[in-house]
Amino acid sequence: MKAEIITIGDELLIGQVVDTNSAYMARKLEEWGISVYQVTSVHDNAEHIKQALADALSRVDIVLCTGGLGPTKDDITKATFCDFFHTTLIEDTAVKAHIERLYANRPQVLNRLTATQWQVPANCTIIPNHVGSAPIMYWEAPKRVIALPGVPYEMEYAFEHEVGELLRNLTNEKAITHHNYLVTGIAESELAILLEDWENNLPTGTHLAYLPKDGIIRLRIDGEAVHLQDFKALIAPYLIAEEDKPLEVLIGEHLKANGQTICSAESCTGGKIAQALNKHAGSSAFYMGSVVAYDNSIKENVLGVSHNTLTTHGAVSEACVREMAEGARKLMKTDYALATSGIAGPTGGTKDKPVGTVWIALATPTETIAKRFHCGRLRDQITTRATTQALVMLLKKMSN
Amino acid sequence: MKAEIITIGDELLIGQVVDTNSAYMARKLEEWGISVYQVTSVHDNAEHIKQALADALSRVDIVLCTGGLGPTKDDITKATFCDFFHTTLIEDTAVKAHIERLYANRPQVLNRLTATQWQVPANCTIIPNHVGSAPIMYWEAPKRVIALPGVPYEMEYAFEHEVGELLRNLTNEKAITHHNYLVTGIAESELAILLEDWENNLPTGTHLAYLPKDGIIRLRIDGEAVHLQDFKALIAPYLIAEEDKPLEVLIGEHLKANGQTICSAESCTGGKIAQALNKHAGSSAFYMGSVVAYDNSIKENVLGVSHNTLTTHGAVSEACVREMAEGARKLMKTDYALATSGIAGPTGGTKDKPVGTVWIALATPTETIAKRFHCGRLRDQITTRATTQALVMLLKKMSN
Repeated sequence: MKAEIITIGDELLIGQVVDTNSAYMARKLEEWGISVYQVTSVHDNAEHIKQALADALSRVDIVLCTGGLGPTKDDITKATFCDFFHTTLIEDTAVKAHIERLYANRPQVLNRLTATQWQVPANCTIIPNHVGSAPIMYWEAPKRVIALPGVPYEMEYAFEHEVGELLRNLTNEKAITHHNYLVTGIAESELAILLEDWENNLPTGTHLAYLPKDGIIRLRIDGEAVHLQDFKALIAPYLIAEEDKPLEVLIGEHLKANGQTICSAESCTGGKIAQALNKHAGSSAFYMGSVVAYDNSIKENVLGVSHNTLTTHGAVSEACVREMAEGARKLMKTDYALATSGIAGPTGGTKDKPVGTVWIALATPTETIAKRFHCGRLRDQITTRATTQALVMLLKKMSN
Repeated sequence: MKAEIITIGDELLIGQVVDTNSAYMARKLEEWGISVYQVTSVHDNAEHIKQALADALSRVDIVLCTGGLGPTKDDITKATFCDFFHTTLIEDTAVKAHIERLYANRPQVLNRLTATQWQVPANCTIIPNHVGSAPIMYWEAPKRVIALPGVPYEMEYAFEHEVGELLRNLTNEKAITHHNYLVTGIAESELAILLEDWENNLPTGTHLAYLPKDGIIRLRIDGEAVHLQDFKALIAPYLIAEEDKPLEVLIGEHLKANGQTICSAESCTGGKIAQALNKHAGSSAFYMGSVVAYDNSIKENVLGVSHNTLTTHGAVSEACVREMAEGARKLMKTDYALATSGIAGPTGGTKDKPVGTVWIALATPTETIAKRFHCGRLRDQITTRATTQALVMLLKKMSN
């Protein structure tokens, strides 16, 4: 069973908006045993939409579309689909009742534009949109086509709670098997040479993918995994985890299981470690807080870094980052504290400490460790890699 | 002059990676007067890649591809393009010298897999990749095709520094004119009714797009804008900015121009305001730091929120968020301080304070203001909208 995704909207093609919907949908479809053949982004243009839809339907069994279902004039998906499926709009009393209920709890009035949202194509099934007013449309013949809103929260809620019911049991195929491994501390090409013989002996239909990002390489085996013990022995020195979970989730699981807590003291990462540690539900069980000490006065006055350290060694130094970690751990009374100080650029680099230099420290109940990293050349790359390396440092220490 | 983008990689079609490359490229191409007709994501599969390339070349003048140029076995773009363009691989001495220089400064050894990177298609021009080892390939005939690495930093660097030179002057067409406006405090459908007459009188070829996100609506006029004064008068009560810049950039410009500083004290937003304020280069001129006070003990011990406030009113209260803002402003000695405290969920909501309730405060040199918001139902939506609303509160206050 194969699907395609069509994302509709001029904003995608002028680069005003990054399409996050298709990755979300693809992940879910995979879970349901449906593989995505292609993703196509097209303009809010009737001919373009119809052509993309016809092309996709010639290749696959299911087509999922997002976008263009709002009440404003630039939203033409509903009218275009009416044309494509040779039908007209009719009033849907259930959608009308839902929108009226939705607006009963909102400060806004239900105006005549919103009222157009209960006009729906006559020959489709309407899937409830519990969190918004755009109707979700479903055609079963000749092939399955579903049109969803482009607002990620609305699409995701409907996908999780309604679309899953419709598509999950369409196929008896098992979800495609993926084995995932996170490794660090080895270059991609070195890893590929290390795994070459093993990879050459994989059966047809099994395939190994390398996804390097921010200092981590994600290895993904698609299909039947054979000689897995040999594979694991080869990657053992570099292995962080045997699943493709975000590092902060692995950290959170470990901290919760041990009843431990964490905080961070961040200079160059500017709150990225904090964000990682508290972004998932349930993080208040282990995450206490952070000090983003961007200016040196904050390092000194809030975290207690000594004035002497700052003047003698500078903020980007082992001494400073150790005092930051220890100061934060004391201030916020946690088991662990991560600290970063580096040069995110584009200015501020020197010969000894070029842009990309980051010191990272981890204070634990028994010791403080610190390490210098080079995290790349570009600002966002540097802060992202430093965050990843800090989380790796913690995860490794906790796993020991 | 029209272009298409093809992004290559299984990881995109199983949802393991969000494609941010195409939005970046589309934005740049727009600037250079080249409009993007379609974006297509395809598998690491030779037939699929060749079909997508042939389809795109039948529609447009320029095709840009990303991905599949690494040294590992799953990277097949180079061989596939050789096949498509009826050529073979040859050694490129300039690429070889570049890669050898690159590795001279790296801890890794230059191994035989990396050495395959200087094998390039015989009939293309090689565009230098200053920050990586994958060669960037350029064919001019029969139409222009460029294949770039999928690693965002490498692609972006090459796009900015090399591809721009090649494509910028291809067309005499002016960049497509877009007028952008940021508005808040009005529902999308209300805004559309307000603008209906104006919109109906737009000339053919001019078009108004509505992009609601996180409590902000971005209005974009594509093409010749007429009766712009009427339009501006209509949106004036809701207008935040007459350009599509991130809120934090507008804030940074304002603070720098006035020699003022800012900090934040964040509970539910968990560092998102900090991240916004320091993510752009030059932010150290106005951003001092933040305290992420996730646990109440941090609110009390670091920010100085009174124990009585926490026990009487709770952490999600006007009193608490005011004390957080004032405490942070005093602690970090800044002109402004933003504070947030809310219920990001999924648990912790009550009848009086349901999930999504967020109190936001702004302390200035002369006063502290606070307001209660309802920021949606889902965790990430709530913290993102709360961050946006905090930045809007600050921007409005500074503009007064």
